[in-house]
Amino acid sequence: MSTRYTVVADPLPHIPWEDRPPGSREVVWRYSGNPIVTRDHAKGANSIFNSAVVPFKEGFAGVFRVDDTARRMDLRRGFSEDGIHWEIDDKPIRFTPEHRDLPQSEFKYDPRVVRLGSRYYITWCNGYHGPGIGLGYTDDFETFVQMESPFMPYNRNGVLFPRKIGDNYALLHRPSDAGHTAFGDIFYSESPDLKYWGRHRHVMGPRGVESLWQHTKIGAGPAPIETSEGWLLLYHGVLTSCNGFVYSMGAALLDLDEPWKVRYRSAHYLLSPRAYYECVGDVPNVVFPCAVLCDGETGRLAVYYGGADTVVALAFAYVDELIEFIKATDLGA
Amino acid sequence: MSTRYTVVADPLPHIPWEDRPPGSREVVWRYSGNPIVTRDHAKGANSIFNSAVVPFKEGFAGVFRVDDTARRMDLRRGFSEDGIHWEIDDKPIRFTPEHRDLPQSEFKYDPRVVRLGSRYYITWCNGYHGPGIGLGYTDDFETFVQMESPFMPYNRNGVLFPRKIGDNYALLHRPSDAGHTAFGDIFYSESPDLKYWGRHRHVMGPRGVESLWQHTKIGAGPAPIETSEGWLLLYHGVLTSCNGFVYSMGAALLDLDEPWKVRYRSAHYLLSPRAYYECVGDVPNVVFPCAVLCDGETGRLAVYYGGADTVVALAFAYVDELIEFIKATDLGA
Amino acid sequence: MSTRYTVVADPLPHIPWEDRPPGSREVVWRYSGNPIVTRDHAKGANSIFNSAVVPFKEGFAGVFRVDDTARRMDLRRGFSEDGIHWEIDDKPIRFTPEHRDLPQSEFKYDPRVVRLGSRYYITWCNGYHGPGIGLGYTDDFETFVQMESPFMPYNRNGVLFPRKIGDNYALLHRPSDAGHTAFGDIFYSESPDLKYWGRHRHVMGPRGVESLWQHTKIGAGPAPIETSEGWLLLYHGVLTSCNGFVYSMGAALLDLDEPWKVRYRSAHYLLSPRAYYECVGDVPNVVFPCAVLCDGETGRLAVYYGGADTVVALAFAYVDELIEFIKATDLGA
Amino acid sequence: MSTRYTVVADPLPHIPWEDRPPGSREVVWRYSGNPIVTRDHAKGANSIFNSAVVPFKEGFAGVFRVDDTARRMDLRRGFSEDGIHWEIDDKPIRFTPEHRDLPQSEFKYDPRVVRLGSRYYITWCNGYHGPGIGLGYTDDFETFVQMESPFMPYNRNGVLFPRKIGDNYALLHRPSDAGHTAFGDIFYSESPDLKYWGRHRHVMGPRGVESLWQHTKIGAGPAPIETSEGWLLLYHGVLTSCNGFVYSMGAALLDLDEPWKVRYRSAHYLLSPRAYYECVGDVPNVVFPCAVLCDGETGRLAVYYGGADTVVALAFAYVDELIEFIKATDLGA
Amino acid sequence: MSTRYTVVADPLPHIPWEDRPPGSREVVWRYSGNPIVTRDHAKGANSIFNSAVVPFKEGFAGVFRVDDTARRMDLRRGFSEDGIHWEIDDKPIRFTPEHRDLPQSEFKYDPRVVRLGSRYYITWCNGYHGPGIGLGYTDDFETFVQMESPFMPYNRNGVLFPRKIGDNYALLHRPSDAGHTAFGDIFYSESPDLKYWGRHRHVMGPRGVESLWQHTKIGAGPAPIETSEGWLLLYHGVLTSCNGFVYSMGAALLDLDEPWKVRYRSAHYLLSPRAYYECVGDVPNVVFPCAVLCDGETGRLAVYYGGADTVVALAFAYVDELIEFIKATDLGA
Amino acid sequence: MSTRYTVVADPLPHIPWEDRPPGSREVVWRYSGNPIVTRDHAKGANSIFNSAVVPFKEGFAGVFRVDDTARRMDLRRGFSEDGIHWEIDDKPIRFTPEHRDLPQSEFKYDPRVVRLGSRYYITWCNGYHGPGIGLGYTDDFETFVQMESPFMPYNRNGVLFPRKIGDNYALLHRPSDAGHTAFGDIFYSESPDLKYWGRHRHVMGPRGVESLWQHTKIGAGPAPIETSEGWLLLYHGVLTSCNGFVYSMGAALLDLDEPWKVRYRSAHYLLSPRAYYECVGDVPNVVFPCAVLCDGETGRLAVYYGGADTVVALAFAYVDELIEFIKATDLGA
Repeated sequence: MSTRYTVVADPLPHIPWEDRPPGSREVVWRYSGNPIVTRDHAKGANSIFNSAVVPFKEGFAGVFRVDDTARRMDLRRGFSEDGIHWEIDDKPIRFTPEHRDLPQSEFKYDPRVVRLGSRYYITWCNGYHGPGIGLGYTDDFETFVQMESPFMPYNRNGVLFPRKIGDNYALLHRPSDAGHTAFGDIFYSESPDLKYWGRHRHVMGPRGVESLWQHTKIGAGPAPIETSEGWLLLYHGVLTSCNGFVYSMGAALLDLDEPWKVRYRSAHYLLSPRAYYECVGDVPNVVFPCAVLCDGETGRLAVYYGGADTVVALAFAYVDELIEFIKATDLGA
Repeated sequence: MSTRYTVVADPLPHIPWEDRPPGSREVVWRYSGNPIVTRDHAKGANSIFNSAVVPFKEGFAGVFRVDDTARRMDLRRGFSEDGIHWEIDDKPIRFTPEHRDLPQSEFKYDPRVVRLGSRYYITWCNGYHGPGIGLGYTDDFETFVQMESPFMPYNRNGVLFPRKIGDNYALLHRPSDAGHTAFGDIFYSESPDLKYWGRHRHVMGPRGVESLWQHTKIGAGPAPIETSEGWLLLYHGVLTSCNGFVYSMGAALLDLDEPWKVRYRSAHYLLSPRAYYECVGDVPNVVFPCAVLCDGETGRLAVYYGGADTVVALAFAYVDELIEFIKATDLGA
Repeated sequence: MSTRYTVVADPLPHIPWEDRPPGSREVVWRYSGNPIVTRDHAKGANSIFNSAVVPFKEGFAGVFRVDDTARRMDLRRGFSEDGIHWEIDDKPIRFTPEHRDLPQSEFKYDPRVVRLGSRYYITWCNGYHGPGIGLGYTDDFETFVQMESPFMPYNRNGVLFPRKIGDNYALLHRPSDAGHTAFGDIFYSESPDLKYWGRHRHVMGPRGVESLWQHTKIGAGPAPIETSEGWLLLYHGVLTSCNGFVYSMGAALLDLDEPWKVRYRSAHYLLSPRAYYECVGDVPNVVFPCAVLCDGETGRLAVYYGGADTVVALAFAYVDELIEFIKATDLGA
Repeated sequence: MSTRYTVVADPLPHIPWEDRPPGSREVVWRYSGNPIVTRDHAKGANSIFNSAVVPFKEGFAGVFRVDDTARRMDLRRGFSEDGIHWEIDDKPIRFTPEHRDLPQSEFKYDPRVVRLGSRYYITWCNGYHGPGIGLGYTDDFETFVQMESPFMPYNRNGVLFPRKIGDNYALLHRPSDAGHTAFGDIFYSESPDLKYWGRHRHVMGPRGVESLWQHTKIGAGPAPIETSEGWLLLYHGVLTSCNGFVYSMGAALLDLDEPWKVRYRSAHYLLSPRAYYECVGDVPNVVFPCAVLCDGETGRLAVYYGGADTVVALAFAYVDELIEFIKATDLGA
Repeated sequence: MSTRYTVVADPLPHIPWEDRPPGSREVVWRYSGNPIVTRDHAKGANSIFNSAVVPFKEGFAGVFRVDDTARRMDLRRGFSEDGIHWEIDDKPIRFTPEHRDLPQSEFKYDPRVVRLGSRYYITWCNGYHGPGIGLGYTDDFETFVQMESPFMPYNRNGVLFPRKIGDNYALLHRPSDAGHTAFGDIFYSESPDLKYWGRHRHVMGPRGVESLWQHTKIGAGPAPIETSEGWLLLYHGVLTSCNGFVYSMGAALLDLDEPWKVRYRSAHYLLSPRAYYECVGDVPNVVFPCAVLCDGETGRLAVYYGGADTVVALAFAYVDELIEFIKATDLGA
Repeated sequence: MSTRYTVVADPLPHIPWEDRPPGSREVVWRYSGNPIVTRDHAKGANSIFNSAVVPFKEGFAGVFRVDDTARRMDLRRGFSEDGIHWEIDDKPIRFTPEHRDLPQSEFKYDPRVVRLGSRYYITWCNGYHGPGIGLGYTDDFETFVQMESPFMPYNRNGVLFPRKIGDNYALLHRPSDAGHTAFGDIFYSESPDLKYWGRHRHVMGPRGVESLWQHTKIGAGPAPIETSEGWLLLYHGVLTSCNGFVYSMGAALLDLDEPWKVRYRSAHYLLSPRAYYECVGDVPNVVFPCAVLCDGETGRLAVYYGGADTVVALAFAYVDELIEFIKATDLGA
């Protein structure tokens, strides 16, 4: 398949992949072997979900959210040859603090990983007097370093761009409150040095009856993918039913140079809880994307998402189709 | 089977039907082929549920609640030969406003349909500065007309009686608030012309520990059925567990001439979420009846109800048994 | 003083009046003898407030909200020669039901009175399975008749127009919920006969940071006054501080023929709690207008309002200045 | 298997039992035939769960929570030969009041049963102007006597110790409020006569991020088991997700002489909702232990617990392993 | 003045007293010198309110709630010759624990004092893992002893009867929750030894629209006074306005032998916030009675109550008039 | 009076001042002419409060929070010769954006002003998709420049230190949520350039029953004052009564080099609502300090604070006494 739009990504011929089922008209379709990581896939785990993977050496590496049976939330490392079958560590990643007086991390969850140059940056929801954005890196998936946190609490869903915007690093994030936040917009911030942050801009917020799946709050999913049409952002949106939150996945295209400007945004979701492993689990009715692999040659995408805050699942799409879907169902900013 | 009580309804020999399973003592039993309409039964649908059907020509017509994948709530038309297999339109019904300055409808959901004479009246939850009762009609299921709304917001679950009470049209409804209302009684109102409404009367409210399934709120289901014992009303009741609302179905008998007077009301529910398609879906634990077909000759009933705010299901009963059940488990008004 | 704009109102030369204090630039100014009715002005009263007065015979008559020391909410009659010194009955008004089966009224509060022809119509918040609009009349302030309620619960702040709009009676009101409602818009409805109501239209809702005093909810105050610039509506708006609701008074001009269309609406309040009797009492920080007298010859207005849900106070204004104020501070609809 | 620690319990060679599945490392494992009692196992039942069983004669007797289809909550008696297959009565247990002026019980749920001498004491959540602790006994599972309630509302999860502490009867319980309580600690109280209660002591409360499964509230499960290491207490803990409460089971060891002193307490849960019958039902995601059988000879345990507030399930463990688990994962008091 | 009804109380000729103001029809009237104790009357005090006094030696002794400027809540001792001018200690009362292992008291507030024989018993709201009832005594107002708490949390407003009922001590109290409880009924419990408590009975709860001042919750005030018509109980009731709680004082007569049976209960309040020191302060709109002195010879009463959670005030009444008021405005139980 | 401790501040001999009233033991005492700025002191004002002043030229300049009668929140400039009598502008300050694409400010409130070198920096609560920290400066109180906001929403009470800490600018602030936040800790952040911010540290949070006046949330008041004992920080703390928030003022000493480390913190408040203008107004019971003047020679302090969110008031203290008070009532960090 040739790509109509340019996508800035390396070839990834061994991307995990399964063709769209015959008869399906879905732009994003589920992997038939879902869930690929079950709740007891790692030792002492209560659940494994909302996790991030990247190509690494000949295969893939990942940072997994693993809640143990004390329900402590932490990150673990994993490796895979094919992106589907994973070996996950028995213990949480031990981050070395960048300098001596870096504050303690009370918990870690919902990681994203992105490569800038030869370094893999990790962002997560970090516990320090409430939930905030944690930031760290690894060069080799052997040693991990924790840096200063970009912001104060209360914040979640921090995601770095895969390259600088102008001279600065750039981050999407979602300011929140101290609990199960019932509101939430995506904001954008910059930093010259990954230590001091500023130039904060609002990107987009929830919507009304014209797009109810994103009515309560929204948050960035995987790191944006650079395309000729703008930054392709997969994100989650939340609807509040009388029985709680429902998390779905949609997509938007952000301006390449000023990514806080939304070019297109889909009114329709791309993936919403339907499968058993998305509807039943520790938190029913959750589809929560945290990572995407992209084959720059074909525009094939493999999306990793958490199901019901319990397991890791996989879905597939083409960049071209996603872009056309977003434009065709555009809500406006 | 002969009917002990008189029911005022035309014969409907081709009513969808399946006998009670051997060994079952249930007064209302589920169709073995449930759900009859799945969430992706119509194009672009996220879910299809809480829908209304009536006999029409040789078969059946229906007005379906179809939420699309933007989670926009709207109504679509469907036809069926047997009441079980349905063809549903690709697009929402387009209602023609009765006159020029009728307000816009921001959304529509949870329809009921009832025939008065040769006209099919449709009521629904209508979006106009909050949820209210929408009212319209069709004579042929080809063109649909939207009339003035009977009330202001905030109201839901409006259901017309299938004939005038005295000289007036009569409507059951449930005043509510602007959100996931945590209270709700059934009221009765009248109109000489379906345009101006008055003579509002309270019918019945939630109950206490003697009937907890209807402890939080109640709302009328299908249009009442006229019987020698009074108007047979199927309705939903809601219990609030620590994990949200649970919707069940019960029944009452209302006075024929003064339908705001409750003659009997069942302490026990008739149907409560048990099946997978009632317990798992966009809103777990919902049984929500919106329509009933009645074979006047045999007293057989086919009840259409929404499951988990996701699918349409079917259940069966006999009028005689229902009436006896209501009397036997009578709570008092 | 001559009036720049036409006001449709009888001369009322004996309107209670006090000139604007020297040096004041206020468009609405308080009476120096406030409060004119104190909480123990009537026998057994806990508080007297949110009350309605009209010219009657040589003087004035009024319907007063009097909560007794059981905190039962009811209406009492009062008479005054000068509109300032009032004799209030020892007992609540006894309304005769218009017909035998009219539902009981569990409580009554916040009356408005308006004359149409020779009849004085009274609306109030009526207790019938929750708060709704009560409707009644008197021809002589001796006998009072209660009619069918225009709507179902939950509704408050119902106010009739002083003449028909087209062929119909017209009513402003504010749908609400069952408690201390945290939302609320003004709606408009019509009736051919004061019995059946329809043609419901949204008039206006709360506003954002550009006019925070009306951010939580709004509700009509006295009956609108007809002027050449439209119906002059005084209304209350509510702001939610961290310590509760604050009630202020503002004004709008509604279209004469289609009163659900707002021609102008003031961004600024006209009166907000400042005086001791507005800030301290059973409900701190409440200014709640329920009645206005108008001298058609001079455009002088005397506004009666409740202070702190405890007492009745009086303020003054000129129609001309009010209209100019509304236009000068117009928010748009 | 020999027991490393002493357990004070009679031999119970016919305890229901199934060995740990091969490959499992679980300290507590589920019975493969779960659920052992389904929701429609008894006549008129909506659900059967949170129930208590004891050895009785040659087999077992039980007091079951059976909610009927009016969702009335009450207790029923059951008998079983093997502890797995149960005969449950058609009607609720009728308790004889101990004396004439004992208050009425509006509802009963969540029973625990414990033998002291030859008498079986039953505690439950009793409805008397709100939820409180009910207390009664039977000598023969034929006649049942209701005694004075130990405390006023609002209280739940009352569990007697199987012998006196010093000279007094002793009870664990969890003070609460009138609704779906969002807080809750375990307390201890004593009585010389099961009529008057005092010497109230705090035992333990919820925990923070180091043990989130017990973050919202905790409550005693079955009656404590006496061991050489202290009283072995199984208890439930609750986590509040964005979609409601999740109930899991953990364990602690309490001081033998001063049982309000916690010797060890596990940071990790032992059982948390995973199976379909624990995740899907009237209240999703509930594991709620109410009874445990113990074979004093081998230290084998059979734990009865409610699944999803809908069914009764069974799990197995060894006393020795439980004690070691608690010590190994000790949180401190 | 002679007393129509018998009151069981010693003569107290030096009771603080001021005649009813001329023209007043109030059954309870305020002291003209109110407040008698201001917020800075004692060293380091933020506020002094909700306090209890008794006749002692030639004059009076009192236990005062004094919140210091850290807003720590504790009790202090005071003496007065005339019951109006008070000397209050600089430091909190130090209670000696009755025995070694009595739990710590985290805070103390809202005391009541009652004499049984020669001993003065004190009850208060005691901090021990939440608010509960504290119990202690003094024989001489020099040394104070803290006993076992009658109940577990969560409870407030515990008040002992001034003599045994049958063979047992008797206590009124109000079960609550852990915060600003929005519900609350008065219950009754007994104890043979002031250590173990049981025989819990419901006394009375809040009321509806017929008596709104006691709509949210109620709680016992001073110790009941024995009269020929029953126990005369002054109590507080709470109404929830849109701006918070309003505390008023009412009265009831309880059966002498079975005090959980209400003989009469006033629909009307006796005292409600009106004076500046009741409406403005740390908690606006609070009248909270904690003590009453009674002259057995004349039936004169002096009621001590807290104003606005800030100061102590005094009001007067006659037993005869109170009893007649209660009967005349009887609500029924 | 000589100062025992060194304070780093210029002499300010013309500081507004009034000696402590005879007999008073207060560490902070109110000005007898309070309030110094009333609600209608400036044109079109609803209220003037929570405002910041600094020495400027021969007298004083200030940035005032002025809410107008639309309740729009904005900042205005004022000048005074004596710090007590103020001339306040008729219109809000117009800030020039530092660069073209700086986001709009939807509202501004609660300013603080601090001089660094010859520049006056202003921080405030800025409206940009919710409340955040606004930052700007003026050199001459004629032209004002708005800079990039330091953080994203949701944040309030941002206060700059009056000199760099190490090489960086330093800011105290209080992350919050989008409404009337019910939680809140003080945090510390640094910036090399006032544009990009990082090195976020927690300073201190609310406290429990040992210091209830600061139980709900706390926030920095005026810019810290440098002393030999550390940074002297005045801050507000909030208690939640059953009738809302109560704002008081306390103080702490922060480490000079690592200001996120609390050296001492007072358990007792210094000022709490008592005066009429603090208890009655738009928000009852608020004392909210925003500015302090310091005479470096004598250690005299003049504290400007808002009363009841309505007026500006003044209080006085000595640095020495404040430091001793903090140490004497130290809570620990």
